[in-house]
Amino acid sequence: MTYRAPVRDIRFILDHVVGYAQVTGTARFQGATPDLTEAILTEAGRLCSDVLAPLNRVGDLHPARLENGVVVSPPGFAEGYRAIAEGGWVGMAARPEHGGMGLPIALALSVDEMMSGACLALHLKPLLTKGQIEALEHHGSDALKALYLPKLTSGEWSGTMNLTEPHAGTDVGSLRSKAVPNGDGTYAISGQKIFITWGDSDLVSNVCHLVLARLPDGVPGTKGISLFMVPKFLPDAAGNPGRRNSLRVVSLEHKLGIHGSPTCVMQFEDATGWLVGEPHRGMAAMFTMMNNARLSVAAQGVGVAEAALQHALAYAAGRRQGVTPLSRDGAIIEHADVRRMLAAMRAEVFAARAIALSCAVAIDMGQATGAADWQARAAFLTPIAKAWCTDTACAVAHQGVQVHGGMGFIEETGAAQFLRDARILPIYEGTNGIQAMDLVGRKMADGGEVAFRLIDEVQRGAEAARSRLPDLAGDVWAAAEALREGTEALLAMDLNDRFAGAMAYLRAFARVLGGQAHLKAALADGGREALARVMIRRLLPEHGALLAEAREGAAGLYAVGADDLAA
Amino acid sequence: MTYRAPVRDIRFILDHVVGYAQVTGTARFQGATPDLTEAILTEAGRLCSDVLAPLNRVGDLHPARLENGVVVSPPGFAEGYRAIAEGGWVGMAARPEHGGMGLPIALALSVDEMMSGACLALHLKPLLTKGQIEALEHHGSDALKALYLPKLTSGEWSGTMNLTEPHAGTDVGSLRSKAVPNGDGTYAISGQKIFITWGDSDLVSNVCHLVLARLPDGVPGTKGISLFMVPKFLPDAAGNPGRRNSLRVVSLEHKLGIHGSPTCVMQFEDATGWLVGEPHRGMAAMFTMMNNARLSVAAQGVGVAEAALQHALAYAAGRRQGVTPLSRDGAIIEHADVRRMLAAMRAEVFAARAIALSCAVAIDMGQATGAADWQARAAFLTPIAKAWCTDTACAVAHQGVQVHGGMGFIEETGAAQFLRDARILPIYEGTNGIQAMDLVGRKMADGGEVAFRLIDEVQRGAEAARSRLPDLAGDVWAAAEALREGTEALLAMDLNDRFAGAMAYLRAFARVLGGQAHLKAALADGGREALARVMIRRLLPEHGALLAEAREGAAGLYAVGADDLAA
Repeated sequence: MTYRAPVRDIRFILDHVVGYAQVTGTARFQGATPDLTEAILTEAGRLCSDVLAPLNRVGDLHPARLENGVVVSPPGFAEGYRAIAEGGWVGMAARPEHGGMGLPIALALSVDEMMSGACLALHLKPLLTKGQIEALEHHGSDALKALYLPKLTSGEWSGTMNLTEPHAGTDVGSLRSKAVPNGDGTYAISGQKIFITWGDSDLVSNVCHLVLARLPDGVPGTKGISLFMVPKFLPDAAGNPGRRNSLRVVSLEHKLGIHGSPTCVMQFEDATGWLVGEPHRGMAAMFTMMNNARLSVAAQGVGVAEAALQHALAYAAGRRQGVTPLSRDGAIIEHADVRRMLAAMRAEVFAARAIALSCAVAIDMGQATGAADWQARAAFLTPIAKAWCTDTACAVAHQGVQVHGGMGFIEETGAAQFLRDARILPIYEGTNGIQAMDLVGRKMADGGEVAFRLIDEVQRGAEAARSRLPDLAGDVWAAAEALREGTEALLAMDLNDRFAGAMAYLRAFARVLGGQAHLKAALADGGREALARVMIRRLLPEHGALLAEAREGAAGLYAVGADDLAA
Repeated sequence: MTYRAPVRDIRFILDHVVGYAQVTGTARFQGATPDLTEAILTEAGRLCSDVLAPLNRVGDLHPARLENGVVVSPPGFAEGYRAIAEGGWVGMAARPEHGGMGLPIALALSVDEMMSGACLALHLKPLLTKGQIEALEHHGSDALKALYLPKLTSGEWSGTMNLTEPHAGTDVGSLRSKAVPNGDGTYAISGQKIFITWGDSDLVSNVCHLVLARLPDGVPGTKGISLFMVPKFLPDAAGNPGRRNSLRVVSLEHKLGIHGSPTCVMQFEDATGWLVGEPHRGMAAMFTMMNNARLSVAAQGVGVAEAALQHALAYAAGRRQGVTPLSRDGAIIEHADVRRMLAAMRAEVFAARAIALSCAVAIDMGQATGAADWQARAAFLTPIAKAWCTDTACAVAHQGVQVHGGMGFIEETGAAQFLRDARILPIYEGTNGIQAMDLVGRKMADGGEVAFRLIDEVQRGAEAARSRLPDLAGDVWAAAEALREGTEALLAMDLNDRFAGAMAYLRAFARVLGGQAHLKAALADGGREALARVMIRRLLPEHGALLAEAREGAAGLYAVGADDLAA
């Protein structure tokens, strides 16, 4: 069973669903012509299918391990990573002045999706480097940029993100790591960090840690946190890796999935670091990096879902079992209930991909035009994309196992790995609950302006589709109207009442966006109507139940006491 | 983190939700007095919490293994199994004439739930023996009963069920195993069987295989299959294990979960077997056994869900993170979104337990009274209970991981094991898709009589509740009415159209039954109203979307072609 990069669907969504042409119509991204776009997707697709996908199971069976304090990658990961680095894929969206290709996020995200579908554990390595590049581009001094960006962009060095501490997960503000000025412009960084993905690696000549820590005059909470660059090897005068810095990997976690990717406990003991951005403004810098990382995790969700679906599809098409409505001794894909699962999985993957890419387009348009409304739209869609696409990954991987029947539970089949790997996605880069709270809190502090504009757009599209696809257009319009009413109800609530309905509201919004995407697809290509019908007639109706839940408020939840929760 | 047997909730559901008193009011089960019921639940609860629960992680870390052709159980399983056997728990529901306790299924199922919550991998062993006892009670000759039942009931020997072959999973009728008469009343059984749970064991002195195979004059398909008893050691004249039979464990599967339980590939080569029941009637005998086994799997679902919930609850109550609406530096359970997850998990576990136990009561009443309507109700509720409770197990275990945040992905935390273990439940004993097809096919061949009677009962209960809990009663009544209309719509369809909506219909039915159970609970004990409100206001609304999907029919699914399913 091999992974086939979904170039056709990505291309279709870019061209017909999310308005990628707007992006390439801007001065900034005009270089991303249709031919270049096609070439990039095809080339990346080939890399993913041929080079990276075969590593997926290898990484699962031969987890990254710690030997004499150094992380040893799974067999073959070195070659896979080299292919990524040498292809220039790390720097796809990085600025050209430091060696990047300056391509749109929409295109880079498509490649992220394919790489994570091929091998999620390995994809995490370039992904974190990309986040670090972005943070340095926005907040690094010129000296830091000049030193680090070329090496990171080329993939010669890699990056990590050090936020979490044992007692400070979601509540980053309570962290205890310290930074003390050395008097020479550098800082002595001390503390322990956990859940550091690819915190060490034998695939690169230096590992660059961005570390959150508190300066002596930093106030408690998030407003007293600063960001530091703390490399494993201190660059010498020529910019090459020199003296070993005072940091180490204490241990690796034993995880449910993504075994190929080392998740490290890191110890910093008066390690030498350089300030990134202003003192005490580390959280702002980190958020720049995290926002796009969140969208990348959404793409990972789409990628794993796509891979799990392909795996299930291949099995269902090959496994013969019993008399089906279509033939004697037919493949199980001919049974209505198996077909239901696969059709729903494909409809969900398509919708999730469209949601992630529409967010990417908003980011690109925000960067290219500087327009506040695009930026606000990107900010609004990011938590939706992150939570929805990663929940979709788990749901599709779960269904993928089910399609396999008993074989799905046997590890050699490979279906279970997708389920295990996907399970991290709703957790890291901010749990999905945090995404939902971000959506109904910060992202709706505008009085719902962005939300209503998106809903208007869905309804305008539905109006335009009414003559050709009356029932589907009608359903999408009505769902958007219900979402509008739900949004108004939510806006009238106290914040904690919103939080109680945040996840349901986020899902309802995604359901409507998914309906919109499929309606657009069916309009653009009549051959896609059947799948649109699966989404809109069978799955979209869930929005009603979700909005009912979203309106319930918090009182009912707090009425459930500790005794009621026990059995 | 330890498992606490949910004796309080089980007792409450038996007494106030599912009408257990009717069962103990029959002549057959009058021995199961309230005092005895309480004593049994308390004693079993203690066994589960104190003896079995500590084995759960051990079995995960030290999988059952094959050594020189013999299965070696995980450390401690021998002591755990001995405690089960010596407590008489294997024979709880078995008939007293062969050493059983003759207790109601409702009570035995409650113990199944607790044992599987404590240690699913070990619970499978007595569970399969219980199924075998039942099959022999119904179909075995007097000689077989006299020889095998006392040993199985005491737990001295254990039982397995050999259905599946590499090319015959759901389609049992295509199996190839053969049985040839030896001329002395015994048969020579040959063939390979896969997915044989506890196919061998070092915990008992004999392993008794019930094997499906075809006699020389057996027609192709399910109507030519017979059932045989094929023990690992042939009983000698005194009934003790004698000569080794010609069967062996070829290999063990490497599974996603339930590592403590060996899943065997079995090879039979002219092994000596005895016919159980009539020639060519093996499927009927197997179905007797499987129907109740399906309900037991439902109980396993409830058990794993309960355990996963307890695990998450303990974490959420202890983990402090950030300022909550209730306190500074509060436990995460005080955050609305975490509380939402936990409250929904508890509401789901309660509903699932009630559904499983209401099915058990119907079985008991059917057995005790011989009334066809109770038997039909039991047959109708069995696929609902199996599919719903096992899907609930996966959903609750998934949420349990989420409540743990990053720690949930680390194996040492234990949350992930529930997710891995639970994943088999929607698959074995007939996939949930098969359950749904059984429901809308065979179980509605009565023109919906049983379904409508259940719906009437929900509505009568809601009517009676209207004065005290008007909004909740109104919601449940309306949901039942929608279910009635959906049922009528389904009955008007062709079978394959029903199959296309089978899973959605099953879920809608379970949602309504869950609403009914919580409404009853709130009426019986005002302290349970808050949880009922979570179920009825936040979760029950899903029935509308499910019924919309159920009505869609198959055409839309078959319109999605192979090309539409590819990306």
